Amino acid sequence: MDQTRTPLFDAMISHYNQSPVSFHVPGHKNGNVFPKRGYDFYKSILSIDYTEITGLDDLHEPEGCIADAQALAAAWFGVRKTYFLIGGSTVGNLAMILATHKQGCPVIVQRNCHKSVMHGLELAGAKPVFVAPIYDKEHERMGNVSVDGMLQAIDDYPDASGVVLTYPDYFGRTYDLEAIINKAHESGIPVLVDEAHGVHFSLGGSLPSSAVQLGADVVVQSAHKMAPAMTMGAYLHIGSSRVHHDELSHYLHMLQSSSPSYPIMASLDLARYYLGNIDTKAIERTVSDIEELRKALADYAIWEVLPIEEQLDDPFKLSLRITYPYSSTDIASHLENQGVYPELVTENQLLFVFGLSLQENQGSILSRFQQAAQNVVTSDQVCHATIERETLYRPLVAQSPYSFIELKEMDKQYVTWQDAEGKIAAHAVIPYPPGIPLIMKGERILPEHMKVLKEMLNQNRHVQTNEVSIEKGIHVYIEETE
Amino acid sequence: MDQTRTPLFDAMISHYNQSPVSFHVPGHKNGNVFPKRGYDFYKSILSIDYTEITGLDDLHEPEGCIADAQALAAAWFGVRKTYFLIGGSTVGNLAMILATHKQGCPVIVQRNCHKSVMHGLELAGAKPVFVAPIYDKEHERMGNVSVDGMLQAIDDYPDASGVVLTYPDYFGRTYDLEAIINKAHESGIPVLVDEAHGVHFSLGGSLPSSAVQLGADVVVQSAHKMAPAMTMGAYLHIGSSRVHHDELSHYLHMLQSSSPSYPIMASLDLARYYLGNIDTKAIERTVSDIEELRKALADYAIWEVLPIEEQLDDPFKLSLRITYPYSSTDIASHLENQGVYPELVTENQLLFVFGLSLQENQGSILSRFQQAAQNVVTSDQVCHATIERETLYRPLVAQSPYSFIELKEMDKQYVTWQDAEGKIAAHAVIPYPPGIPLIMKGERILPEHMKVLKEMLNQNRHVQTNEVSIEKGIHVYIEETE
Repeated sequence: MDQTRTPLFDAMISHYNQSPVSFHVPGHKNGNVFPKRGYDFYKSILSIDYTEITGLDDLHEPEGCIADAQALAAAWFGVRKTYFLIGGSTVGNLAMILATHKQGCPVIVQRNCHKSVMHGLELAGAKPVFVAPIYDKEHERMGNVSVDGMLQAIDDYPDASGVVLTYPDYFGRTYDLEAIINKAHESGIPVLVDEAHGVHFSLGGSLPSSAVQLGADVVVQSAHKMAPAMTMGAYLHIGSSRVHHDELSHYLHMLQSSSPSYPIMASLDLARYYLGNIDTKAIERTVSDIEELRKALADYAIWEVLPIEEQLDDPFKLSLRITYPYSSTDIASHLENQGVYPELVTENQLLFVFGLSLQENQGSILSRFQQAAQNVVTSDQVCHATIERETLYRPLVAQSPYSFIELKEMDKQYVTWQDAEGKIAAHAVIPYPPGIPLIMKGERILPEHMKVLKEMLNQNRHVQTNEVSIEKGIHVYIEETE
Repeated sequence: MDQTRTPLFDAMISHYNQSPVSFHVPGHKNGNVFPKRGYDFYKSILSIDYTEITGLDDLHEPEGCIADAQALAAAWFGVRKTYFLIGGSTVGNLAMILATHKQGCPVIVQRNCHKSVMHGLELAGAKPVFVAPIYDKEHERMGNVSVDGMLQAIDDYPDASGVVLTYPDYFGRTYDLEAIINKAHESGIPVLVDEAHGVHFSLGGSLPSSAVQLGADVVVQSAHKMAPAMTMGAYLHIGSSRVHHDELSHYLHMLQSSSPSYPIMASLDLARYYLGNIDTKAIERTVSDIEELRKALADYAIWEVLPIEEQLDDPFKLSLRITYPYSSTDIASHLENQGVYPELVTENQLLFVFGLSLQENQGSILSRFQQAAQNVVTSDQVCHATIERETLYRPLVAQSPYSFIELKEMDKQYVTWQDAEGKIAAHAVIPYPPGIPLIMKGERILPEHMKVLKEMLNQNRHVQTNEVSIEKGIHVYIEETE
């Protein structure tokens, strides 16, 4: 197919060129009814913020320009079908779990998945089997899921309705996904991959392979994270017949707005066009420019530039491990004061995400970056901080004792930590950083959990939870005593 | 509170004014990485298409500028709490049903609700009680829910976990919502209102009262339909303590993107600002301008301008009932060829939706409208069509025999229409127009349904359904035979 076409965007522009009068929603009337205060930023996009009018097709029953645009995306990514998502990877993760879940069958999930995966399991009423991530000693951070743990879990639960994975991890590092996919397919289990940070992997070259190329059955990609779509634009790809297309589209229809944003949908058309027509030489040039920056930043004693490996790491991401006794948060705020905004700050690392092109402002980007780094070094404000080591207990493979459907029927009570051991947690307990859950909602609270938790609370470490006063205790589900 | 403030929009602009360098998502890098083809329309909005960076708060745990903006909205609408929605009224309808549903309790719902309400019932596993709409003889269309039917249903099902209503209807007509709310509250039942088309009712004047003012417990309003927000921008208001705020925010957190669109969120801040600072005289002027247009259009024989009543009808909507034997679809396409796009075309009506301000192009709008009307009249292309009358059988109050949780466990089979009577439909059957379901998913197929269906199929009327070949038969659920 001709990847230079952008059928959805073009259809909107030809409607625009009619200078039509809108007697339909939205209420801003193509931008004519809008507060002056926002005019400069909104005027041009509102002029194409359309709805399902004649000629602009319907996301939920596409037959025209949207179907055409989705087909072009499917062809470029090399999949059976591509759905445009306007609710982000979040809605894709929810839908792929809901569409594949079978009541009574477990779902194998990596413990450090995105919260939307947990939300999908809860909506589906699933009974998850959690596989722990491994601690990456070289980079000193929690990294990808344990491949051995995944293979073991598939052996232990061959009746699983699905395996849900995150690939690559937040830092752009990948793992042997193919081994897991092959193993799962031996048991006929579909593999659902949250590839939110990997939409550009299909470009090939020095990039890791995409989950699509490795044979995953459903792959969800944020088009706004690494490709140039508007925020909330994402793709859901179907790679096999192991999942029912109509089940998936049913749940996408249920979960996504009946008035989808045309600017976001058209940006998905344009993002695919951008990827499909990019000059691969330009990409490699950008990659080597970023490599240059890595070298330049290596001269500073306050941090170590973490190395990346071809085919294994995303070259568009740069991680700095802050050297003891410097503080990652202080360094981050120094950079931000220079107008340099990182993607992520952990207790010992800074993550920077680059665009697929540094464009004309490349030089200024690099210099501002280095300038900011200089200022940090010469600053007195850098305070001392100890770097946490990852010591939290997590079983390699653990099934929750109840499904979310059973949990929904159970009553809760608040207990102090003294009485919590052995009970079923009604809230997740997520030490942050690094944000990997210690206790999942619905998991039994074990002595090992208690030990680590007491430690953390003594250290006053921040714990993410919906619980009102996690320091004192936690809500637990009341089990039937037979 | 000072309604001239726009804290979220302002925070984004002050970040913009720093001319920051983005080493974070989105991948378009504030619009610097984007295909030239879309530049003119996207450049300015992408420059503020941000993510959760320092100073821009977090929609899912708001403490800063987003919390401030939501508080200003709550103050203006006069509610306890307002949530900004970036997934449209759809996500609000899903969340309010999921958050209030109690397993085993029925939910009272009007049959001609928006599909997102049906989807919410399905996700919740609810057992719905459907109340039929009434046929509005004066306007010759299916209109609002039967108030008597609703009052009866509340009497019949005092243990209902909620009453779900649409107010106003698509044509902007309202009904005695207050009577239903008062009756429901006598039994302690929360009333959840899909007020997608009524966000501007809070302006008062000649407008009908808003569901918020009438005491509804949860109200969902599309901010993009009648107020000037970007498409997919909506508000969810909580008006009482009959619903748990934390349950609602939990489901909104589950269902909405973890990377919410800042341009859409800021447009909700600006839309509230627009409503809160609008000159009510200007509003009344617009209303009288539209009234002028109604008069001008009354001179044409091919249609009748349907009358509106103060406080009962939305004056920003204009309905034309096409006179026999003219064709509404032909007239609509004539208008569209003149660049005049209506909101809705039914078998006998055209609906036009006006903005809260006709702005400077008011004159041209009216003249183009009249010009288009003239051309239609003088055209030969207008073909003949009979106007359908609403004769479909629907019980006033009817409970589905199974909950969606039970249906999820039941097997399906395809049966021809001869064998369908008495079975449980696995697909909704929705004659379109007018789009009011004849048979709901999960309802028992009655002889009356069959009679009407045969009629419709003989007339080759379009039927909306997921069923592959609705002419021949339908999928039904297989019931346990005891």
